[in-house]
Amino acid sequence: MEVTRRNYKDSLNTVYSAIEEADFLAIDGEFSGISDGPNVSALTNGLDTPEERYTKLKKHSMDFLLFQFGLCTFKYDQTKSKYIIKPFNFYVFPKPFNRTSPDIKFICQSSSIDFLASQGFDFNKVFCNGIPYLNQEEEAQLREQTEERRNQHANGVGTPSYISPSSKGPAHVPEEHKDFINRVIEKVEALFTNSEKTLDLEPCTGFQRKLIYQTLNWKFPKGLHVETIETEKKERYIQVSKVDDEERKRREQQKLEREQEELNDAVGFSRVIHAISKSGKLVVGHNMLLDVMHTIHQFYCPLPEDLQDFKEVTMCVFPRLLDTKLMASTQPFKEMITNTSLAELEKQLKEGPFKSPQVETAEGFHSYDTAQEQLHEAGYDAYITGLCFVSMANYLGSFLTPPKAYISARSKLVEPFFNKLFLMRIIDIPYLNITGPDLQPKRDHVLYVTFPKEWKTSDLYQLFSAFGNIQVSWIDDTSAFVSLSQTDQVQIAMNTSRYAESYRIQTYAEYIQGKQQDKEKLGQTAKTWGDDGWVKSHYTSSTTSGSFGYPRGLRKRSISPVQGEQGTGEAPITDGWSHYSYPDSTGSKKMKTDDISGQANAEAVESKTSEGWLKTADSSDSAGLSPIPDEEEEEEESSEGTNPANDAEGTVTWQQATRKGQKNKKKKSKDSGSKTSLFEVPEVW
Amino acid sequence: MEVTRRNYKDSLNTVYSAIEEADFLAIDGEFSGISDGPNVSALTNGLDTPEERYTKLKKHSMDFLLFQFGLCTFKYDQTKSKYIIKPFNFYVFPKPFNRTSPDIKFICQSSSIDFLASQGFDFNKVFCNGIPYLNQEEEAQLREQTEERRNQHANGVGTPSYISPSSKGPAHVPEEHKDFINRVIEKVEALFTNSEKTLDLEPCTGFQRKLIYQTLNWKFPKGLHVETIETEKKERYIQVSKVDDEERKRREQQKLEREQEELNDAVGFSRVIHAISKSGKLVVGHNMLLDVMHTIHQFYCPLPEDLQDFKEVTMCVFPRLLDTKLMASTQPFKEMITNTSLAELEKQLKEGPFKSPQVETAEGFHSYDTAQEQLHEAGYDAYITGLCFVSMANYLGSFLTPPKAYISARSKLVEPFFNKLFLMRIIDIPYLNITGPDLQPKRDHVLYVTFPKEWKTSDLYQLFSAFGNIQVSWIDDTSAFVSLSQTDQVQIAMNTSRYAESYRIQTYAEYIQGKQQDKEKLGQTAKTWGDDGWVKSHYTSSTTSGSFGYPRGLRKRSISPVQGEQGTGEAPITDGWSHYSYPDSTGSKKMKTDDISGQANAEAVESKTSEGWLKTADSSDSAGLSPIPDEEEEEEESSEGTNPANDAEGTVTWQQATRKGQKNKKKKSKDSGSKTSLFEVPEVW
Repeated sequence: MEVTRRNYKDSLNTVYSAIEEADFLAIDGEFSGISDGPNVSALTNGLDTPEERYTKLKKHSMDFLLFQFGLCTFKYDQTKSKYIIKPFNFYVFPKPFNRTSPDIKFICQSSSIDFLASQGFDFNKVFCNGIPYLNQEEEAQLREQTEERRNQHANGVGTPSYISPSSKGPAHVPEEHKDFINRVIEKVEALFTNSEKTLDLEPCTGFQRKLIYQTLNWKFPKGLHVETIETEKKERYIQVSKVDDEERKRREQQKLEREQEELNDAVGFSRVIHAISKSGKLVVGHNMLLDVMHTIHQFYCPLPEDLQDFKEVTMCVFPRLLDTKLMASTQPFKEMITNTSLAELEKQLKEGPFKSPQVETAEGFHSYDTAQEQLHEAGYDAYITGLCFVSMANYLGSFLTPPKAYISARSKLVEPFFNKLFLMRIIDIPYLNITGPDLQPKRDHVLYVTFPKEWKTSDLYQLFSAFGNIQVSWIDDTSAFVSLSQTDQVQIAMNTSRYAESYRIQTYAEYIQGKQQDKEKLGQTAKTWGDDGWVKSHYTSSTTSGSFGYPRGLRKRSISPVQGEQGTGEAPITDGWSHYSYPDSTGSKKMKTDDISGQANAEAVESKTSEGWLKTADSSDSAGLSPIPDEEEEEEESSEGTNPANDAEGTVTWQQATRKGQKNKKKKSKDSGSKTSLFEVPEVW
Repeated sequence: MEVTRRNYKDSLNTVYSAIEEADFLAIDGEFSGISDGPNVSALTNGLDTPEERYTKLKKHSMDFLLFQFGLCTFKYDQTKSKYIIKPFNFYVFPKPFNRTSPDIKFICQSSSIDFLASQGFDFNKVFCNGIPYLNQEEEAQLREQTEERRNQHANGVGTPSYISPSSKGPAHVPEEHKDFINRVIEKVEALFTNSEKTLDLEPCTGFQRKLIYQTLNWKFPKGLHVETIETEKKERYIQVSKVDDEERKRREQQKLEREQEELNDAVGFSRVIHAISKSGKLVVGHNMLLDVMHTIHQFYCPLPEDLQDFKEVTMCVFPRLLDTKLMASTQPFKEMITNTSLAELEKQLKEGPFKSPQVETAEGFHSYDTAQEQLHEAGYDAYITGLCFVSMANYLGSFLTPPKAYISARSKLVEPFFNKLFLMRIIDIPYLNITGPDLQPKRDHVLYVTFPKEWKTSDLYQLFSAFGNIQVSWIDDTSAFVSLSQTDQVQIAMNTSRYAESYRIQTYAEYIQGKQQDKEKLGQTAKTWGDDGWVKSHYTSSTTSGSFGYPRGLRKRSISPVQGEQGTGEAPITDGWSHYSYPDSTGSKKMKTDDISGQANAEAVESKTSEGWLKTADSSDSAGLSPIPDEEEEEEESSEGTNPANDAEGTVTWQQATRKGQKNKKKKSKDSGSKTSLFEVPEVW
């Protein structure tokens, strides 16, 4: 279903009930650009820390506009043994709702716009009919303003709502307008003595109207209703009406109701995001970190400085996330799936050993044909993403005894994949762990090298030619990380470089220490983890109480908790999860369970880092980050759509490389610290 | 005529000949936004100096995109006694032409986008079919790259054009690709021994293709042509062909020609601007400063830091400009025209004493109906602007003895309006003088006041209540200019404020001195004028020689002079101006004549400043700059379209106010230093 400003209000209940009844939700966003940084390789160094990556994305990607939001709800129908889906395609645009509303500026990147254009994207729908939105602070401000006005009125200050509180004295009327204003006063005085109910003044300038409002408010604080009316020719004039107290109150009341309605309209699309958030349902996306960041940034609040704060906010807004790109890149899928771009993934999951899920489009919704449809309509991409999730989840059921063909979104089998968002092009950290600390792979085989800006990758290969296979990750024109294949070579490299003049080598540890010192000089101190290694997250109370919004600790500015317009104090989450039994029945405990399994996995990965993840990404990285410009030797056109940081090839090679050492996954899968499985295989398998 | 990427090449000759045959050109641009500054009042203080205004516009407006360019050519047909017009509406978009081309980012302002959307603007045409463009430096770089490649080839370096010069050694082939590359080498070796002419390799990744190119180039420097081919399914594979030397050269030549063609395509819309510039024709716009700035910025070069340099560049690109808003705001029109917004101006110029010009749309062009058409299509706005110019020019003919009904764009009567661009909302400097120094009105009745940020306009009125009528121009939250009605009150104000604690007063001279000192601290020294008070402009040589491009002095980077593709060394300008006799027949002398009259006028204005211009803008300014927010007391919706800095009202009041003291314009018009006329009335009147 296509939703624009035109049918938004009428569609809202359809959207709400689709979310409420769903087993899980799939989402996707389309943006006006990806990166306003100098280039993608600087934005995505293969040895970024999660903090660095978050900071870069926040700095270089958040000024773009999320202007199409795809939502596809999946509800499993037991009797039909198939999913009933409801796809929505929302067009979103920050149309200013009045003259005092924020006038949003956003960046467009011509390559992204051009890509979407080539896919038949309809920009007119966005810019002419996009649904407006407000973030929580803007909404709160607007509500406060309305409230304040209402209170003033109720307290009998006697100023009609259209007079700003600051204008209490007589208006200052410039000399050349005095005649004009005096004539208006005469007319209004005449109105009081004659039998007319209203007086239409002649059209005049905005400044003159302002003077009229101020003057009449001061001269006739009671008994008048003053309103600006626009003619068909867009001329504006003032209508003055004699009103008794009751009539005036009625008009004021009408005005307030109209304002309330306008306020809801202004909050606009954010209400859909609020409903998704409130539902607590599993939200599935493909390579979804930017989608999540943009959604929070645009519809909730500017992103926090700190990665840890971002994780907390994310858990409040989306208590359960699953990234199909990460899932496809993880055991048991990573060996079977050669290309994790959405389009390729979808194709591969149609073939054995996977099965295309049985789905049926709900009545009244556009039915997508996966054999025909173009990608990069957000609603379609969300749909495909959901299909991929279902295929992979069901495949996990084949390991059960007896095997199960249908695995629900609430199954314990998919839990290991919760709240881990794929990190593009980081060699040894596959995901951002939203509910816990991130992996900290050893990087003691990595050197930080600075050199003259004329140097190319080949110069680095030559410099380290004695050390066998190396891997270069460019940072900028004059620095790069060089990963050696063996850690014990690091000291040799350091020693031989001691007297070098043109270049300089530091260990990774020294580099990090230097950065840390720079940071401390800037007065920023690094966050520390709690004793137990877990974030003191506030999501527990927010999920269980059923309200959404930020935990108190995050409310740096006063954001009033927004009441959902459906008026339910109870969150649908209880309903969504209640008929599945967990070791502990509360949502918060379940999350904790996830976290613990995540930690075990983290250790497993950490121990294998330098041999496993690291080597494997070699070719993708040198292809992507090579500074040699060459027109014809292009990377594949990114099938990730607007995203120039193509990761498809990286994954291919990585898969190929890892295959070597781990042919017999199943046999090894119970070894603890196994090199082949990222996640511990649950006992049920 | 609507021109997009689809019909651009076919339309180019039509555009060129329309420009060549025209008497004058009218232009208009539509932008993705106006100001990314905090707010318009901060951007347009009523007492800005021209330098300040230029700096603000450059800083806060140039990141928007000029995405629709309107051009309407006007050619007078003597036999029909009417203008034949050719309107063009160009859609412009910086589509990246290949992977190494600049990926332009631009800002969109939601209010501007929303305004254009409400006018039925077609964003899809811009983003899907906009004509690309390059500025001069980008074009030069691209030409150099092509040239360099060609030379390398000619010098027998022997590297095919698709191999970058940096890759001379054997390619570094990562371990996991060695098998793959070795198999490719075997196949190619087999190709040399068998009878096949070409070999299609299997589709592979971009990185693998890069390795293949590098390897084959190194192993088989001669006898092979290697090319990437894309299948219908967008898969890319490499085709290797055996070629003899001749065949290889032929293919290389084809490739170079294709590149040349692609380069011209990439320069795209800039060629239209080059043609306008080369023609030397009078270019008419309405409130055209931003149009001129954007056009230069987007299609020539980033705007210079310094206003003086900007003026020089402008004269190179547009040697003759005329701003209809400035014309309408100047004697003899300012008293007759109550609203100088384009739409209103057009309406007023249809009524007596003005006459609607007789125009005919050339065959094959869209015929606009001024009674029907919506504004804010750039082509239509350009058309209307041209009409306004013709009406006003013809009106000037009524002062001749005998009166003339038709006044050409080359008439001396319109010269006083040349190269003076309207300055929005500056109280005492009506225009930016492109060909000379700007007016320097005395501001010795102006105070610079700083105060706590709680202060409102009313506080300032109260503070200065003893001084009669004052005028407040807000600078920011905590400072404003206050203009007193009498200069001798300045000292009194200064004395009484000496012991004030909450606020601080400086004279305007002190304020300017302080700013100057700050600037000098930053190492920027103010430009000085030449002894004779005139800019040493370089436009003389560039106009008379008929080439365009920047004067040598401005070429800070190496920009090669672009040769027009029409191949004429002679500029059309000679033709366009030759059958009109001037006191001096060269363009440069004529300009000088303008300048002198401009200087005389400047003095006239200067002497009357505090009584004339200043007072008159009072109401507009306090309306526009008042910091009191009030939803209902709005200014008029700007009829200047996307421009939130509505100036219409200001002009109205100014006109009203000046009318007081100058009822009998014609009688007084011969007094020197007259208070009623901005420009000296030429002797011919």
